[in-house]
Amino acid sequence: MEKKKNISMAVIKRLPKYQRYLRELLDKDVDRISSKELSEKIGFTASQIRQDLNCFGDFGQQGYGYNVEDLYKEICNILGLTKKYNTIIIGAGNIGQAIANYTNFQKINFDLVGIFDTNPKLYGLKINDIEINDIDFLGEFIKDKNVDIAIICVPSRCAQEICDIVVKNGIKGVWNFAPVDLLIPKGVIVENVHLSDSLLTLSCLMNGST
Amino acid sequence: MEKKKNISMAVIKRLPKYQRYLRELLDKDVDRISSKELSEKIGFTASQIRQDLNCFGDFGQQGYGYNVEDLYKEICNILGLTKKYNTIIIGAGNIGQAIANYTNFQKINFDLVGIFDTNPKLYGLKINDIEINDIDFLGEFIKDKNVDIAIICVPSRCAQEICDIVVKNGIKGVWNFAPVDLLIPKGVIVENVHLSDSLLTLSCLMNGST
Repeated sequence: MEKKKNISMAVIKRLPKYQRYLRELLDKDVDRISSKELSEKIGFTASQIRQDLNCFGDFGQQGYGYNVEDLYKEICNILGLTKKYNTIIIGAGNIGQAIANYTNFQKINFDLVGIFDTNPKLYGLKINDIEINDIDFLGEFIKDKNVDIAIICVPSRCAQEICDIVVKNGIKGVWNFAPVDLLIPKGVIVENVHLSDSLLTLSCLMNGST
Repeated sequence: MEKKKNISMAVIKRLPKYQRYLRELLDKDVDRISSKELSEKIGFTASQIRQDLNCFGDFGQQGYGYNVEDLYKEICNILGLTKKYNTIIIGAGNIGQAIANYTNFQKINFDLVGIFDTNPKLYGLKINDIEINDIDFLGEFIKDKNVDIAIICVPSRCAQEICDIVVKNGIKGVWNFAPVDLLIPKGVIVENVHLSDSLLTLSCLMNGST
């Protein structure tokens, strides 16, 4: 199935949700599903679903619906899940440790290969079998281990400095948990998890601003 | 300043970012800022900023710009940050513990008052001075302590059940870290932090689907 280019960010943001629901359907041995049935499960309109999935080729068949396995495989492919990614965590604080201990990411091909911190007391300690290293070795490690993704879990004030180091050493993807907006050169992707922003969105909506 | 209703979700999602940048400006004793200068910092276009802030009243003044303190206060107000929220965490695993240990939320009026888990070995242990409790006391606790927000950090398979319990006992806001989409009644707000979805968005973009 030929992949079309220029897919909008809105569609990309919806793809992981499609992947999750299709995985569930596969686990329940569902072979095919109509856009209407998928719509009832996933909460997007049937028309939205048809439009989204059309971006990637001609999947649905009138009167038959979608072949769940084919669609799942194609979405995994688009999400880049047919590859393996070497990841490192920088900052072994609360969030860094939680991510390091969360083994579900390994199951979907994101291998944690290193953890770095500035606190000498942590050096040599292991989280999930990965030793915490001195941040001074970061650049060297990235090149040696062909690291693809840096997971930044350091405080805001040093996040940009860390980002600059990892990018300089060839990292192409940054998963940023620091509550700052990082400056990155073209060709590098940053995806933010801004927890405070998310919590403030919740309080805003609870406060009835809609 | 009179608050206008029917603010779009897109604007609401941008508000925490305005709040962050205005806080930084205040910390640097900046009194006023033009939409152009704010645009250079925050990365939205000046026209977008004027349009967004106009939703909440007439802030900017031609040739003067925005009064940073007034704007900051108003945005905090819209974000519901003039109130205090009692929060509880359900699920004292990796993410639950990380959130419990993260004291920054307390600084912005989100008080953690309880932590719950199903594992008896954890009962009585303390995280950040809050004792982990038996989940059987959840409903009673919510009513006794006037809990506003439930932070759901349990595995997917039991997230909906927990959500039903907290909603039944009067919770109006759910911050959901379980990788499922929760069904909630009208009047309850759910804000998701779907970490896997975020990681898959990153790999999708690295895979060049745009």
